[in-house]
Amino acid sequence: MDTANAAPEPRESIFTIEATPVKFGPGASADAGWELGRLGVERAFVVIDPYVHAAGTAQGVLDSLRAAGVDVVLFDDVDTEPELAALQRAVAAARDAAPDGFVAIGGGSAIDTAKVANLLTTHGGEIMDWVNPPVGGGRVPPGPLRPLLAVPTTSGSGSEATTVAIVDLPHLGIKTGISHRALRPAQALVDPLLTRTAPAAVTAAAGLDVVCHAAESFLSRPYTTRPRPESPAARPPYQGSNPVADLWSAEALRTGGRFLRRAVQGGADVEARGFMMLAATMAGVGFGSAGVHIPHACAYPIAGLRHAAHPPGYPGTKAFIPHGVSVIVTAPAAFRFTFDADPAKHVLAAEYLTGEPQMPGDREALPRALTALMRDVGAPTRLRDLGYGKADLPALIDGALKQQRLLAVAPITPGRDDLERILRESL
Amino acid sequence: MDTANAAPEPRESIFTIEATPVKFGPGASADAGWELGRLGVERAFVVIDPYVHAAGTAQGVLDSLRAAGVDVVLFDDVDTEPELAALQRAVAAARDAAPDGFVAIGGGSAIDTAKVANLLTTHGGEIMDWVNPPVGGGRVPPGPLRPLLAVPTTSGSGSEATTVAIVDLPHLGIKTGISHRALRPAQALVDPLLTRTAPAAVTAAAGLDVVCHAAESFLSRPYTTRPRPESPAARPPYQGSNPVADLWSAEALRTGGRFLRRAVQGGADVEARGFMMLAATMAGVGFGSAGVHIPHACAYPIAGLRHAAHPPGYPGTKAFIPHGVSVIVTAPAAFRFTFDADPAKHVLAAEYLTGEPQMPGDREALPRALTALMRDVGAPTRLRDLGYGKADLPALIDGALKQQRLLAVAPITPGRDDLERILRESL
Repeated sequence: MDTANAAPEPRESIFTIEATPVKFGPGASADAGWELGRLGVERAFVVIDPYVHAAGTAQGVLDSLRAAGVDVVLFDDVDTEPELAALQRAVAAARDAAPDGFVAIGGGSAIDTAKVANLLTTHGGEIMDWVNPPVGGGRVPPGPLRPLLAVPTTSGSGSEATTVAIVDLPHLGIKTGISHRALRPAQALVDPLLTRTAPAAVTAAAGLDVVCHAAESFLSRPYTTRPRPESPAARPPYQGSNPVADLWSAEALRTGGRFLRRAVQGGADVEARGFMMLAATMAGVGFGSAGVHIPHACAYPIAGLRHAAHPPGYPGTKAFIPHGVSVIVTAPAAFRFTFDADPAKHVLAAEYLTGEPQMPGDREALPRALTALMRDVGAPTRLRDLGYGKADLPALIDGALKQQRLLAVAPITPGRDDLERILRESL
Repeated sequence: MDTANAAPEPRESIFTIEATPVKFGPGASADAGWELGRLGVERAFVVIDPYVHAAGTAQGVLDSLRAAGVDVVLFDDVDTEPELAALQRAVAAARDAAPDGFVAIGGGSAIDTAKVANLLTTHGGEIMDWVNPPVGGGRVPPGPLRPLLAVPTTSGSGSEATTVAIVDLPHLGIKTGISHRALRPAQALVDPLLTRTAPAAVTAAAGLDVVCHAAESFLSRPYTTRPRPESPAARPPYQGSNPVADLWSAEALRTGGRFLRRAVQGGADVEARGFMMLAATMAGVGFGSAGVHIPHACAYPIAGLRHAAHPPGYPGTKAFIPHGVSVIVTAPAAFRFTFDADPAKHVLAAEYLTGEPQMPGDREALPRALTALMRDVGAPTRLRDLGYGKADLPALIDGALKQQRLLAVAPITPGRDDLERILRESL
């Protein structure tokens, strides 16, 4: 075929924005019972983080459900960074409970567990049927799920605002996800008072996840550079950067740069933790539209390949790498690599994050701002800090290359050599 | 009662943000049939603006519905700035058609007509039962409505993104609305190509409405100054300014200031008309959360009391005052009055609108920017231009005072004397 004379491939001209309805503010979580009533839920399967449950932080939420006459089935066997087996336990328990709605109280782990339990309770099947291809079957929900009320207790994942649930598949050495608009929670109650007991290490990792979501979305491939889809159904959930997602991502960068250091100092700073919760939700809306790419693609094998140690400052004893840490460690090198796609926008991201003017054309502005933030909140800054060495590079590269769905959103699509350089620089 | 020793009234700590899912871009309206399929609609009552229908601009939308196998019942008897009788005709036609979903193609008039027809077809009753109190019965929808797909063809009302429908009640000399979250469209398709045939006068009035929505929301009373509601159900739809609504309002001001003059020049400037459509939707999300106040409260009697002339440049022959004109004429005086509530934020609004730095503390910065914009787009700038004189002031003041639901959102609540000064200055 003579491609030189072929008509240019038509380009995308359309983007979509959808957001979970959010109720934000100190005390918002006390509306949980009222919201379930509004949503017509009489029997709720309540997925609650075990540490949040034990700390009693969310007792007001449970009280509010019971006061509203909701029949509550509690499930607190939530895995941190949930593995397949743990999600299967949640699905089994939810099927037994036969609820007409779901509540998730916790961080991304609890909210994602509730999304998966809701999906399988509503539409049947096995988890792997629904996992994104090529790892899973990529089944598409044929209709809406039951209402899910999301009550985050960390300020990181933004899962309350997204259509994705993350699944760790240790038998494959990979993390991946289930992604469909039907997974979006029906309502989020974002209550800064619920983050008061979150440890500093959890707040730091979650906050770095927020900043990374926002930077990746803001610097993702513009939606107009994608090929036009054959049909609306073929439009990918991660569409690339667009004027509305950019608003959310920019504000999440500004807020993260301004409040994360304070939020990590302690739970008493309700203002800082509140703004970080708001930033998490805003970043969730942004990346739910634009998408994340290289750091998240690298994070899946980083978190999936090795469960070497229990992260300092986290509750419990499980050995794992916090999601926020696994994404942020490659971000400086990743944005050094993508810089040439849009130098001005990379510098602008650094200006949002630091609140200060940066030198035009400075490739190091954003990597420097990210590294300073990582150091200031006491997070690991290098792959080496997570137990990885040069010998692990091939496996990490292979793992990242499997995330083509994400890499396609990068403003410059990295090949094997590019990923090797990014991961090597991140060691 | 000794109020000096009474405990301070508890203040609101919570705000909510909800947005219609939006698909934006040239060609987006061709997805109409696909979207109805996704929403499970098989028989649609399609409310279409008669001038849009006659111009054939939206033929692609109708073709897309029919290609998707949707059974279409067309209704194009849409009143401009709909009066009660016209809405009653639409309700009667929709009841006869017994659809399982609605489509609105047109400006705020068509979208609001579809909202009202949907409400009454789903939940019964008479229109006045549902109109906001004290004018109407203020009935609350007991559940969701049928799916409404909104396809705006102007860039003004933002009705595709809001939960309100405006009703003109000429027998009472008043305009008011029906307002509930259930009225929010299920999906909006915002397609700049559909605005190409909108006349300059329509584009100007619609764009001034956008700018006024954004300025009023941005400068509304902060949500934290409201009393805390007794229950979540008592939280008003217009909550006052908040950090998320401010993002939308600020961006709508920036976009309106940058693109409205170009959009009025002609339909060929798809970029400018596209950005104005985006601004209309963004302003809709902003004022749907924060609310509008003094200019809109004054606009209802301004538009409702007198139907003196057919507005130049509008299609048809009906004598009425375009909504955007009725709101913008009092905006300069209204923001001069509210200035002392937050001088810095008023100046910031002027900076967004002009794209230029303003003198700190300049009470005239925003009135000046608004008046310049009105002049540049060829709109009336004074109540006198609309046929009003000094003798009309008492009736206008009485009409504005009836809009307590709106006046409560103002950063300084105006009394009768304040409204008289604002309206007198606007003559």
